[in-house]
Amino acid sequence: MSGQLVECVPNFSEGRVSATVDAIVRAMLAAPEVALLDRQSDADHNRSVITLAGPPAAVAEAAFRGVEKAVELIDLTRHRGAHPRIGAADVVPFIPLQGVAMEDCVRLAESVGQRIWSRLKVPVYLYEAAARRPGRANLENVRRGQFEALTREMGALPERHPDIGDPVCHPTAGATAVGARKFLIAYNINLGTTDLAVADAIARTIRSSSGGFPCVKSMGVFLASRNLAQVSINLTDFERTPLHVVYEAVAREAGRRGVEVVGSEIVGLIPRKALEMAAGHFLHCENFRPESVLENRVAAAVSPDAPSAWRLPER
Amino acid sequence: MSGQLVECVPNFSEGRVSATVDAIVRAMLAAPEVALLDRQSDADHNRSVITLAGPPAAVAEAAFRGVEKAVELIDLTRHRGAHPRIGAADVVPFIPLQGVAMEDCVRLAESVGQRIWSRLKVPVYLYEAAARRPGRANLENVRRGQFEALTREMGALPERHPDIGDPVCHPTAGATAVGARKFLIAYNINLGTTDLAVADAIARTIRSSSGGFPCVKSMGVFLASRNLAQVSINLTDFERTPLHVVYEAVAREAGRRGVEVVGSEIVGLIPRKALEMAAGHFLHCENFRPESVLENRVAAAVSPDAPSAWRLPER
Repeated sequence: MSGQLVECVPNFSEGRVSATVDAIVRAMLAAPEVALLDRQSDADHNRSVITLAGPPAAVAEAAFRGVEKAVELIDLTRHRGAHPRIGAADVVPFIPLQGVAMEDCVRLAESVGQRIWSRLKVPVYLYEAAARRPGRANLENVRRGQFEALTREMGALPERHPDIGDPVCHPTAGATAVGARKFLIAYNINLGTTDLAVADAIARTIRSSSGGFPCVKSMGVFLASRNLAQVSINLTDFERTPLHVVYEAVAREAGRRGVEVVGSEIVGLIPRKALEMAAGHFLHCENFRPESVLENRVAAAVSPDAPSAWRLPER
Repeated sequence: MSGQLVECVPNFSEGRVSATVDAIVRAMLAAPEVALLDRQSDADHNRSVITLAGPPAAVAEAAFRGVEKAVELIDLTRHRGAHPRIGAADVVPFIPLQGVAMEDCVRLAESVGQRIWSRLKVPVYLYEAAARRPGRANLENVRRGQFEALTREMGALPERHPDIGDPVCHPTAGATAVGARKFLIAYNINLGTTDLAVADAIARTIRSSSGGFPCVKSMGVFLASRNLAQVSINLTDFERTPLHVVYEAVAREAGRRGVEVVGSEIVGLIPRKALEMAAGHFLHCENFRPESVLENRVAAAVSPDAPSAWRLPER
């Protein structure tokens, strides 16, 4: 595999009506050269997370087509769900995968954002690495009060003006946050309790904004369909705070409150290295390292960067 | 990466004198087109496990050169160690990695075995998929009584005659078992006790020959250098009995005896899939599957076998 690869993980505010999500996915895949890596819909969150990859221009085209279809089909004034959102196409992040710099993804975010405003009249906030105002690196600030508050405040408060477009929410599609960021692990841990306060308390303990682990965002969510509380987690740098550290902290904090972890789920995709780190930890491995993995060794041995004594011929 | 790849994991009966192991490794790497994937020496086992990969003919050449050097440098009459052995070059398994069938590895084992006898006068047993007698598929049978018993019995007992060569042990290098097999995970779990009987009892509980898990071989070993007992495990099919199942069984059996697991170690290499399965299990993932791994999805999307809607252009 070679060439430039960008990932895009648009989140759409529909997780219940599969025909709507299907139509959005179909619209995106009609763009040439784009691969669907994953799709996941959650009825409680009422949200779908789609993972695409491909060359930068192709992924940008697909992302725009997905936003266009979501604006056409989703009416946010009728949307209820456990996950905060400001738009029909709520967030559209671009992530460098291969042969692409973060700066390239910032340019993609800007051009797709410009197109969303000029063609669809949906105002756009630029976030994370694409942010133009310091407070907007953090998506929580952009999404504060959600669609309902934003509709009232966008025009009235200068600090809520969008980065691209007029300061007026689209009547049914709200606004869209378009950004560039590193790969993020979305990971939810389900608790054996219906008490949302327990999930909230655990989320506060682990998240960096409340003094917890660096690079961890977290909130409590109630899953009506399963009648249980969930700690919903975003891990923005799993090499600084590993996945297994977060898992064990949640399990420990739950245990202190007499609550069990009943399961967990990865939303979208997870980088191999995060899993390898977790397996090494849980197996109590004294000597675990990525080089212990057969496929990693073979790949390193055939790499053109390998020292010559280690190289395998490529045939 | 393309082309044919074979792995070879020769085990040599020297784990203490690094100059000897270095000389053996150097001899093997002098063969062209061979990559050293891993090397590990254990002083208590008094044994070194070397992992090579490359095209079939190159790996066969390297394996022969390693055996030749081991026969020159290792005197088994002076060898003591915790791990059973019959030869200076104790076992030489060939493993299909890519574009190679098990039958090809059987042919490699036969030709290398023939060369070991004709050039070095070390008699050879063919084991696992290369076995010519039913009892010899199982390496334990070949190695029963080790070098010392084999020296007495090889000529006297027809059932101990080698598959290749005259029925006389090489005076200092013993015999060598050459085989073909699937990838094997060698995994040791260290216990917080000096009591070898505990490790033995746990090994009996988990191994298939005593009615435990399928595809698990296991024995208790005492590690003098660390003053602790170890459950030493070979997992011959980690998809039938996953690594984490074995780990948890050992931890549970140890706990029942009031003993803690103090650590574990992977000897040689481990296939990625075994780690991904373990991580999914320990993280209590409800939805984990290999397709959850970013790199697996990208690889599948760029594969020529991928459905066209999933394909990324290869550039």
